[in-house]
Amino acid sequence: MATTPRRRAPTPAPASPWAGSEERQRQRQAKRNAVLTTAAQLFNERGFHATSLDDIAARLHVTKPTLYYYVKNKDEILLACVSKGLDMTLAGIEASRAAGGNVVDQLRACMQVYADIVMQPFGMCLIRVGDEEVPEPARSELRRLKSEIDLAFRRLVAQGVQEGSLNPCDPKMTAFVIAGALSWIGRWYQPEGAYSSAEIATQCINTLLAGVVRQPG
Amino acid sequence: MATTPRRRAPTPAPASPWAGSEERQRQRQAKRNAVLTTAAQLFNERGFHATSLDDIAARLHVTKPTLYYYVKNKDEILLACVSKGLDMTLAGIEASRAAGGNVVDQLRACMQVYADIVMQPFGMCLIRVGDEEVPEPARSELRRLKSEIDLAFRRLVAQGVQEGSLNPCDPKMTAFVIAGALSWIGRWYQPEGAYSSAEIATQCINTLLAGVVRQPG
Repeated sequence: MATTPRRRAPTPAPASPWAGSEERQRQRQAKRNAVLTTAAQLFNERGFHATSLDDIAARLHVTKPTLYYYVKNKDEILLACVSKGLDMTLAGIEASRAAGGNVVDQLRACMQVYADIVMQPFGMCLIRVGDEEVPEPARSELRRLKSEIDLAFRRLVAQGVQEGSLNPCDPKMTAFVIAGALSWIGRWYQPEGAYSSAEIATQCINTLLAGVVRQPG
Repeated sequence: MATTPRRRAPTPAPASPWAGSEERQRQRQAKRNAVLTTAAQLFNERGFHATSLDDIAARLHVTKPTLYYYVKNKDEILLACVSKGLDMTLAGIEASRAAGGNVVDQLRACMQVYADIVMQPFGMCLIRVGDEEVPEPARSELRRLKSEIDLAFRRLVAQGVQEGSLNPCDPKMTAFVIAGALSWIGRWYQPEGAYSSAEIATQCINTLLAGVVRQPG
């Protein structure tokens, strides 16, 4: 008996061994990120000037020419690392403020964000690298972004002084003290040290807050 | 009438236009100091790596060969600048402690010494230059001396906690907060800025002490 041939479902195209353009873009970004993170770690360990592209390539088990597919040169890498540290900080501060709560809660949350970030490779890079090491015009842009961190702390302190939850003070100087003590963590923090990053953040923040939060009575 | 010839006082030797060896040594030291101070200022303004011996010579209105009479090379200059900053700090801390007084007075005096020094060229150099930029074996020696500053603060804090004049805390972390906030002044201080160095020191120290000194009652 003759059967009517069934209409076949269209055969799916064989999976291509080449990634699609979106996936390729994603992989490329992940690899660039790996280059930047490794570079930041090396800059923090040895200093920017003592680190070569060869060092970065060696730690990633690739050749220097491979690196050039993801980054332009050492200056561009440094700028990208410091920018990432800044972006993370500003985004974290923005999120802490957006989460609301009273001024002291917001200040504590912003301090927590900043302390966490300076103990990570990009944040450590941000505070270890002097602005003067970054060539213009990137230097001015970095200074502008860094001053936004200071301004965020300054605004919170001013708000707290005004509402009476913080001790009377010059918000600019107090913001410098807060940001300075937290930044300095990135200079001495050793991941394999005796204190965890969480312990360090908590203790430093408590000591600083004890000096600025107004005690009732 | 014949007079007996008077015994003449011995004629003093004519003043030599060449300085004596002691004076020569003094002049040489003063000139080496000028080289180091100028170098420290340039390192602080432009960064160590971006500063050349030619830049230093130009600011002193001398030629580069003249510099080599006083210093060996840029690495030696950096080491000398950082060492001077360290020596000044350790001597100042020692003097503050030797002056006696209660723990809070001593702590305040040490903080004042350190704040003053990080706003001067050698002290600023000390805190701006990462240890990793100084070649071994000098690097290990500098780290040892830097940790003495930390230890001095730590000992005072521990003493204050023990006698009850400071809030209970981990002296190591509190010393890091104090030294960190004060060190950071050397990163943002501008001599021509809106605040005098004395105002900055006083405000930062008061904010920090408010967080550590135990309030009565």
